[in-house]
Amino acid sequence: MTFELKQHLTDQATKVEIVLKRLLSEPPLEAEITRPPRLLAAMRHGALNGGKRLRPILVMETANLFGRADEGVCQAACALELIHCYSLVHDDLPAMDDDDLRRGQPTVHKAYDEATAILAGDALLTLAFDVVAEEAVHSDATIRLRLSRELSRASGIGGMAGGQMLDLESEHRDRTEAEIRRLQSMKTGALLRYASRAGALLANAPELDVERMTRFGEVVGLAFQLADDLLDVEASPEDMGKATGKDAEAGKATLVGLLGADQTRQELTHLLNEADTLLEPYGPAAEKLSALAQFIVNRKS
Amino acid sequence: MTFELKQHLTDQATKVEIVLKRLLSEPPLEAEITRPPRLLAAMRHGALNGGKRLRPILVMETANLFGRADEGVCQAACALELIHCYSLVHDDLPAMDDDDLRRGQPTVHKAYDEATAILAGDALLTLAFDVVAEEAVHSDATIRLRLSRELSRASGIGGMAGGQMLDLESEHRDRTEAEIRRLQSMKTGALLRYASRAGALLANAPELDVERMTRFGEVVGLAFQLADDLLDVEASPEDMGKATGKDAEAGKATLVGLLGADQTRQELTHLLNEADTLLEPYGPAAEKLSALAQFIVNRKS
Repeated sequence: MTFELKQHLTDQATKVEIVLKRLLSEPPLEAEITRPPRLLAAMRHGALNGGKRLRPILVMETANLFGRADEGVCQAACALELIHCYSLVHDDLPAMDDDDLRRGQPTVHKAYDEATAILAGDALLTLAFDVVAEEAVHSDATIRLRLSRELSRASGIGGMAGGQMLDLESEHRDRTEAEIRRLQSMKTGALLRYASRAGALLANAPELDVERMTRFGEVVGLAFQLADDLLDVEASPEDMGKATGKDAEAGKATLVGLLGADQTRQELTHLLNEADTLLEPYGPAAEKLSALAQFIVNRKS
Repeated sequence: MTFELKQHLTDQATKVEIVLKRLLSEPPLEAEITRPPRLLAAMRHGALNGGKRLRPILVMETANLFGRADEGVCQAACALELIHCYSLVHDDLPAMDDDDLRRGQPTVHKAYDEATAILAGDALLTLAFDVVAEEAVHSDATIRLRLSRELSRASGIGGMAGGQMLDLESEHRDRTEAEIRRLQSMKTGALLRYASRAGALLANAPELDVERMTRFGEVVGLAFQLADDLLDVEASPEDMGKATGKDAEAGKATLVGLLGADQTRQELTHLLNEADTLLEPYGPAAEKLSALAQFIVNRKS
C-alpha cells in the first residue's frame, strides 16, 4: 500500500471518530433530553477507543466509488460502527468471552461495571437506529428505512447475534468446516457485507452494482475472518492489544486449525483475486477499495 | 370495568401473542436465513410468557380510536413489545436486578444461561427495528421511519436505557422527588408515551390529536409507575409472580416512600381525571382507552 493510501485510510478513520464523538456528546440544553453522564461515558469508552473503523470506511469508500462522499454517508457509516462497538462491549462481558483488555485498554465492564456495560451496549445498539434515520443520510426516506432494516437483519438473530450464539455453543466440541463457515458468515460476515452494500445504496448505485458490492463485502468478510484467525494463532498480545490464542484456549475449532496456515493463506489469495475481479469494471476509481481489502488481509493487529 | 371490556382486553392480548409468535418462529426454508434454535428459544422464553401486553394494547386502542385496526397496527405494537421484553430480560440479569422469577417462571438467564440471555435481549431489541419497518405497518415509508426513530429514542440513553442507569445509580442513596420523577419518566414513561403516540401516528391522526395522545401516554405512564410502586409495597409475591419489596430491599427511594400511600392514591385519581379529560373530545369511542387507563391503575399484579 502506498503512503498516500495509508494516509487516506487514517484520514477516513479520523472523520469517523469526529462524527462518533458528536453522536456521543452531551445533548444541547435546548434539546430537553437527559443523557445520564455515567452511561454516556461508558458508551464513549466502548466506541471512542481508536478502533480501525474498517466497517465505516468500507461504507464510505464504496459510496465514494459511486460518487457520494458527504457527511451523511459518514453518519450512516457510524450507525454501523455503533453496532460493531456494542457487540464488542457485550462480547467482552464475563458471561461471554470474559476479556479484560480491548486495544490495550480496560474493557467497559472493567472500567465501569457489568450492569453499566450491559446498558452501554444496549444504548449503542439502540442509538444506531436513530442515527441511520437522520435526514442527512439520504434524501429518500425509503432508502433510509431500507438501510435501517437491513442493518437490523445483519446484526440480529439471522446475522451477528445469531453468529455469536453459534460461536458460544461450539466451545469445547468439534465443528465441521461448514459449521465454522456458517457461523463466521453470520458473526463477522454479515456486517461487512452490509457495509459495502450500504455504501452502494447510499450513492444510488444501479442494482447490478449494488449486487456486485454486496458480493465484494462478502469476500472482504471472509478474508477478514481468515486473517483474524491467522492473527489469533500467530500474533503476540502486545501487537493485538488484547489476549491472543483465545480460540484454542476456548477449545474453538477455527478454519486455520482445520485447513492449516498454508491453505488458509492460499484461500486468502483467492479471495483477494475475486475482490479485484469484482472491482475491475470500475478501473482506477476502485483503487482505494482494493487497497482496503489488501489492508484487511495484511494487517498486523 | 365491564365484562365486555375485560374480554376485549384479553382478546387484544391474544392478537399480540399470535403476532409475536409468528415474528419469533422458525424462518421458512426458502428464506435462507438461519435462526440458531437455542437463541430463538431463549427469545421466545423472554417474549412469549403471558405478559399483560399493556403497551401494544395501548398502541392498538389508540390507533383504533382514529379508525385503524388492521394487522399492521398490531405488528407496530409488537415492535414496541419486543423492546419491552428485551428490557425485562436484561434487567433480570445477575449484574442488574438479579431476579430468578418473572411471572412465576424462571427468568431467561435461569432457564438458559447468562450469555444466552444477553444475546436474546440484544436480538429482541434488534428485531424490533426490522418489524417496525415492515410495509404492513404503514403504507408511507416516512411514517414507518418516524416510528422507528421515535422507538429508538424512547428506548435508548435518553429514554428507557438511561432511566435504568439512573435507577441503578440511585441504589443505597437518597433521591429527591424530582430525581425519582425524572428517572421514572425515562425508565417506564418513555415507552408508554411512545405507545399512544405511535397509535395516533399509525392512524394518520391530525397533529393536535397526536399531541393529545402523547400527553395521554405520559399520564398513563405516570399512573402506571405509581400503581407499580404501590403494588411493590402492598402485593404478595404470589400475586405478582415475582419478588416484591425489591425497591426497599435495594434501598431505592420511591414516590410512595416519599409521599406515602394516601397521597400516591390521590395523585393517581388526579391522573385518571386528566386522562378522561384528554379523551372527552372523542366521546364514547374512547371508552376502551379510558378502561385501559383504569385497568393499569387498578391491576392487582
